[in-house]
Amino acid sequence: MMETISVPTSSHSEMVDITKQVEECVKKHEVTDGVVVVQSMHTTAGITVNENADPDVQKDMLMRLDEVFPWEHRKDLHGEGNTASHLKTSTVGHAQSLIIDKGSLVLGTWQGVYFCEFDGPRTRKVVVKIVEG
Amino acid sequence: MMETISVPTSSHSEMVDITKQVEECVKKHEVTDGVVVVQSMHTTAGITVNENADPDVQKDMLMRLDEVFPWEHRKDLHGEGNTASHLKTSTVGHAQSLIIDKGSLVLGTWQGVYFCEFDGPRTRKVVVKIVEG
Amino acid sequence: MMETISVPTSSHSEMVDITKQVEECVKKHEVTDGVVVVQSMHTTAGITVNENADPDVQKDMLMRLDEVFPWEHRKDLHGEGNTASHLKTSTVGHAQSLIIDKGSLVLGTWQGVYFCEFDGPRTRKVVVKIVEG
Repeated sequence: MMETISVPTSSHSEMVDITKQVEECVKKHEVTDGVVVVQSMHTTAGITVNENADPDVQKDMLMRLDEVFPWEHRKDLHGEGNTASHLKTSTVGHAQSLIIDKGSLVLGTWQGVYFCEFDGPRTRKVVVKIVEG
Repeated sequence: MMETISVPTSSHSEMVDITKQVEECVKKHEVTDGVVVVQSMHTTAGITVNENADPDVQKDMLMRLDEVFPWEHRKDLHGEGNTASHLKTSTVGHAQSLIIDKGSLVLGTWQGVYFCEFDGPRTRKVVVKIVEG
Repeated sequence: MMETISVPTSSHSEMVDITKQVEECVKKHEVTDGVVVVQSMHTTAGITVNENADPDVQKDMLMRLDEVFPWEHRKDLHGEGNTASHLKTSTVGHAQSLIIDKGSLVLGTWQGVYFCEFDGPRTRKVVVKIVEG
């Protein structure tokens, strides 16, 4: 029970709501109870669970992450110049584990699952693995 | 095997040790081996595993997180004004996975499970899901 | 299906690639499908998944984490003086969940599993737990 989701991103930094795609994987496999691991297959893009209502939250989060981990840094050694993207990915996490109960993802009222693009735009790959139990 | 824990918090920022409550869920279901997912049902409060001995560690962590993600930020757009809480939640994580072995949580000597309140005080909800195996 | 990996570190801050050791645990137990939880047993060392190619990425990440969470801070209360290590651990995470498919760890081309030493050098302990399914 593993699925691959393709996530096209359209900005350099972007939080894309993938809650529906993850829920569809759960429905498709008709799992009633278990855990789902949602994993970004990249090192410059991660997964987080955060606010699904006001899109300004995502804008603020991306803006502030960019201040904490600025794109340019005089001491960076990495030739590709995207050290900040790697740091943001490890900060939010490359993957998140979610709970399935009675056939649905267990999420709070305001919780959504987000793919966090930190070095786009690109077409990205997310893997969803369900373990029943 | 899913349980809900209610966590009343008493400060705006606070780390509440919920290790015992999680352990009680494991004992109650008599699971000898498996994985537990401990999930905050909120977007302004998370879960982390950190030092259970000196309470000054938690004070320092909250103080420094507040410096990295200050409450007020002139560029914030989000009307509720709690962007910092959302960022801290994604930084520590909305959930953590823990290991069960021989009927107990596998934790290092100094490791405790903490509910991280970043926009309290409130009464919060944590969900604990056990997968055997 | 739980294994303990010993990780000797040689610097104060260091990212040690433990992908092979985790893969060996998966092979040893002949698991074809499931989830692995890789957990640091410490509160000043964590686990992350990040770039496995250019070692400058790890150097940059450690350097920048040190800027965001400097070793010395005039407001720190914790007597051991390693508050920064605790913060870095909660930022990257004390543990990560990985997917097993067809007997192998599911990792992107550039993804490796790293033990993150934030207060070394020491000999550290990592626990690997596999849940089939």
